[in-house]
Order: sequence, then C-alpha cells, then structure tokens
Amino acid sequence: MSVQAVRNTPVFLSACLRQPVSHTPVWVMRQAGRYLPEYRELRSKVAFEALTRTPELAAEVTLQPLRRFELDAAILFSDIMTPLQGMGVDLTFEPGPVVAKPIRTDAQIDALPELVPERDVPFVLETIKLIRPNVPRGAPLIGFAGGPFTLLCYLVCGRPSKEFGAARSFLYAQPQAAERLLDKLADAMAAYLGAQAAAGAQALMLFESWAGLLAPPEFNRFALRAVRRTMAALRSTGVPLIYYVNQGSALMESVADLDVDVIGVDWRSQLGTVRRVLGPEKAVQGNLDPAALFAEPDELKRHVDAVLDAAGPAPGHIFNLGHGIWPETSPDAVARMVDYVHERTSLAPFSRASGTES
Amino acid sequence: MSVQAVRNTPVFLSACLRQPVSHTPVWVMRQAGRYLPEYRELRSKVAFEALTRTPELAAEVTLQPLRRFELDAAILFSDIMTPLQGMGVDLTFEPGPVVAKPIRTDAQIDALPELVPERDVPFVLETIKLIRPNVPRGAPLIGFAGGPFTLLCYLVCGRPSKEFGAARSFLYAQPQAAERLLDKLADAMAAYLGAQAAAGAQALMLFESWAGLLAPPEFNRFALRAVRRTMAALRSTGVPLIYYVNQGSALMESVADLDVDVIGVDWRSQLGTVRRVLGPEKAVQGNLDPAALFAEPDELKRHVDAVLDAAGPAPGHIFNLGHGIWPETSPDAVARMVDYVHERTSLAPFSRASGTES
Repeated sequence: MSVQAVRNTPVFLSACLRQPVSHTPVWVMRQAGRYLPEYRELRSKVAFEALTRTPELAAEVTLQPLRRFELDAAILFSDIMTPLQGMGVDLTFEPGPVVAKPIRTDAQIDALPELVPERDVPFVLETIKLIRPNVPRGAPLIGFAGGPFTLLCYLVCGRPSKEFGAARSFLYAQPQAAERLLDKLADAMAAYLGAQAAAGAQALMLFESWAGLLAPPEFNRFALRAVRRTMAALRSTGVPLIYYVNQGSALMESVADLDVDVIGVDWRSQLGTVRRVLGPEKAVQGNLDPAALFAEPDELKRHVDAVLDAAGPAPGHIFNLGHGIWPETSPDAVARMVDYVHERTSLAPFSRASGTES
Repeated sequence: MSVQAVRNTPVFLSACLRQPVSHTPVWVMRQAGRYLPEYRELRSKVAFEALTRTPELAAEVTLQPLRRFELDAAILFSDIMTPLQGMGVDLTFEPGPVVAKPIRTDAQIDALPELVPERDVPFVLETIKLIRPNVPRGAPLIGFAGGPFTLLCYLVCGRPSKEFGAARSFLYAQPQAAERLLDKLADAMAAYLGAQAAAGAQALMLFESWAGLLAPPEFNRFALRAVRRTMAALRSTGVPLIYYVNQGSALMESVADLDVDVIGVDWRSQLGTVRRVLGPEKAVQGNLDPAALFAEPDELKRHVDAVLDAAGPAPGHIFNLGHGIWPETSPDAVARMVDYVHERTSLAPFSRASGTES
C-alpha cells in the first residue's frame, strides 16, 4: 500500500486491517452517552427509546462526542435490543431492557419472525444516512448489534441480572432449543448489520457483553457458533468486522480463528497476552479500565501508557476503554485520554487533519 | 508418605497438599444453603443473620449437607461480612450486605478498630467447636473469610452492585487510602482466620469474589498485596490455605507465586490451563459451572467428566463448583454429581469409610 493510500484511509479503518497508521486511533465505548452534558440535556426532554427511534436525534447524539473530542470513529447511537423490538419482541427500558414474555419454549422460538431491517427498523438505516455526511474530520461510522448469545440472555431471563442464571441453565437444560434460538438471532443480526453497511456504516461491531458468563466449551458451542454464522454472512459487505468479547480472558484461543478483523477486549485481559494468543491476523481494540478515568491526570497518563505498552507496535491496535464509559466520568478526563493517545503515538505532531487528508 | 498415613488423612486435606488420594474429594461452595429443604425450613423460622450468630444453629446448618451427601469437607456457615460487623461496621442483609456508612475517607479508615476475634466474634469460634466433633465421616472443616479487596468493595460501595464502580474508581482516585484500608482488612482477616484455626478449622479459605473486577496490574497492587499479608500471617497455623479467585482467568500468573496450597477457580477458567500456569506446587479447586446442575443426568456426567479430564491426574485436585450453588438447584442433582465424582475417581469401589479410616 502506498503512503498516499495510507494517508487517504481513515486511521481507524487502517488499524482494523493492521495497516500502517499515522497514530493509534481512539474511540470510546458508549461515547455518546450520559457523561456528556449535551446528551443529558437532550435526554431530559426525550426518552431513551424515542432518541434511538428518531433519526435526527439519534444522529445528533452520535455526533456529539465527535465535536467535543478528537475521536477517530463514530458509533451509531442505538441499543442492542432495538432489532428485537423490530422482530415483535415486547420490551421496555427500565432503564435496562425488560422483556414482557421471556422466551423459553420451542413454540416461542418458532414464532420469532425473521428481521427485515428496511421494514422493521427503517429509522436505524435512516439515522446512518443522516450521520455519514456530517461526521467531523471524516471519521468513519461504526454500525453495531448485540451478539446472539448476549441477546439470548435478555430474551430468556426477561431482565438484566448479575448472573443471568435462567439463560445459563437454559443452555444446559435445553441445549437444542438454545441452538435454534441462537441460529435465528444470528441470522437476524446478519441481516441487521448487512443493512447497516448498505446504509453507510463503514465497520460493523458485534457486542458479546455476556461472553464472560460461559465456560470455554459452552462459549464455543453456543456463543461462538452463532457469531461465526453472523460474521460469515457479513464478509461480503467488505467492511471491517469487530467482535467485542467482554470478560473473555479465557476465550481468546476460541476466537483466534474466527473470521473477523478485530477482537475487542475488556480491561481485565492483558493486551500483550491477547495479541500473542490471537496471532498476527487480528487487530485488537481496547482496553483501559473505565475506572482509570477517575485517576489524577498524571496517573491517567501512566495507565494509558500501560495499555499502549502492552499493545505493542501501533499497527493493529485501536485504543478504547475495556467497557462502556461510566455516566459519572468527567468529559475533561476523556479529552485528556484522547489527546494523550494521539500525542504519544503520532509519527508527526498530531493535527486535526492527520489520517484524513492527503 | 506411607499408605497407612495416606489412609488416615482425610482425602480433602491430602488433596490440598497434593498427596496421593483414594479418590478426588468433592465439596460444594454454598453447600449449606437455600437449595436444601432442611435449610429453608430453618430459615423460615430464623433470620439469616441470627443463624450466623447462634452457634447451635450455625453448626446445624453447616452439618446439614454432610448428612445428605457424601461430601469430603464441611465449610463453616457464616458470612464474609460477619467479622466487619465485629469491627463495628453498621450493616444489614437485604439480603445482600448493605453498609450504613460507606467507608471512603482517611478518617473513616483510621477509625476502623482492629479485630479481636475472641472478643468481637466469639460465636464464630464457638460454632467451630460445636461442629468439629460432629462432622459425619470425620470430614474436615474449612474456615473462611472474605478477601480484603472483596471486603473493600462492599465497604466502599455500601451495597452490592454489578460493577462496584465506586470501589474501582476509589482504587484509581485514592490509591494510598485504598492500600491503607486493605492493610487493615488484611490484618483483621489474618486474626480472624488464625482464631478459626485455633478453634479447630482444619483448612482456611479466603474468598476473592470480586477479583474479576480488576485488571492484572490493579489486582497485583491492591488485592494480591493484601492477600499476601493475610496468608503470610497464617502459615504458622499449619493448616492448608486456599485462595478462591473468582473470574480470575487473567490472574493465574499473578497468584502462581502466592504462598498458599490451593487456588480455587471459577467455571470460566480451563483447569488444564490453570494447572499449567500455576505449576506443580499448587493444588486446584473447582470448577463445574453451577448451571450444569440443571442438565439432564447423563449430560451432567459428561460435564463432570470434562472438569475431571481438564484437571488431569487426581492428586492436587479438589472437585467443586466454580461458584456458589444456586438456590434453585435440585438436591438430587448434587447427589448425582458427588457420587459420580467419587465413582469415577476411586481407586477401589467407593465406600463411606474411604479416606477416613485405616
């Protein structure tokens, strides 16, 4: 790849493909959210669900953090449960998703319709189209969905829980039913993410927020099998594919041969170990502890250094938190983190234009 | 060691010391608890806290599962917060522990008194003395306490939470204060466990239920440093020391050189990997997924097989769940699991007397 091409490709996308970058790109999980005063102001007038379903507002919220910080990527403002609502699942946000009728029987699984994104969640695709021309600095837009197993957790349990006991015992007690439900969800998420790419999303990320509930054999049998199905269907989109495996320290060997470009990891994994296990064919995304943003400024730099040092050479590393940013976080700390990642990793003095202009 | 000596030592204690055993010993975290009808009957008449503070009742509850199942060890019925109450911390169980005044300032830390077990929690020591002569089949009694960091989580947050955000940000924002609090808790737990051993506990276990909240550097700096302090003070008791590291897949290298006899692991770690990282000087305890007890009987055997196969040769493996048993579990499933572990691992046909009589 020529230097020209490198300089024309947004650094985030180059990093996903493990290509040379002018600096380590950085974005923040839940960067559009409650730690931002401008988000809280909007939310004081509009309910969460309405925000996600109104393209103008969802686009505005998506762009808010990009205006404030030098972030290298935008991520669609939405919720992992949104496509399930599109499939007719009756749920409310209290504020965690609560499913009116938990899905536990074969009949309920059979009754789940397929997802047709253009018909069932057109507002998501409209949001993407509104965002794309307006992202500051030409930063790419990430589309996303929940991992099939993570969605199963909510559908089977009915509401968030620390242990998701009902979902885990469901896997053991009714493994065939679980596989059928996961197949349906895998296909739905493939359709959903494929439509997001068609609408303009430049990378696609699957969030396996509850991967850490599973021992490796069950992760392989249930969660990973479903993700393979989703990801295989998305290769033809041509955009980078990212799989975020929360609490997945013991699962890195399992995901090493999954056909995706990037593995996102939480703060509990050591990035050096992760890269060694994953091998040279995967980029990694992460993994500062969200709690580190509460450290004194100099201490915060030291924690950022530790992540960058563990990650090793810049190509193939996307800096992020290891989990969603907390609502109590100071935006100033975010600014310091983003700027410091750029400053420390830039080949040349960091400027607004780096990586986006030739 | 002679065959005679092997046969006179309870298998559980032999396994802790990685000595030859007649079968793989098995016990169950939270084996005295709500899944047992006889426990629920007692609890319908007596509040949880009163149970833990009344020696006759706490002893009865401790022994209940030993009468029903061929368990190889008893574990004291108590709560990890009990010694903190003894130190004057005002807390209630709702049912999780709720601390009236969360501890977050230097003044509060300084004001925490030391723990004098004989004065502050005499009922725990009395319970141990009541249990010891009455344990079926001469099974050994395990005493226990909470890991200093796990106790810090409750003290700083005030109540259980999924993320224990206030505790984690406390470590980053006030690291020196956190260290001082941990030192105090480490010393208190050393005194507490030392007194349990003096009263008759034959093994001592420290539960680090929230180890998995920490990235390895923070685990090392805060949680592990405090555990080293506790465990160092307990070596002179002469009883096996066990450290349970929940959600610790990424922490095994950290605990490999901790001076304890046994590392307990949750169901998310692969026992073969764990033993390889820990090396030959540690026994391991675990790690069936508590959810596996909801599988059909034949499937359950297959899951038990997988744990035994991963653990490898019997010496130095204590079979257990990877986390506390769930209240919804069928006692029949527990009986099947316990009997199958014995059946599959016994050198000779398993009998009630094995490992406890010469």
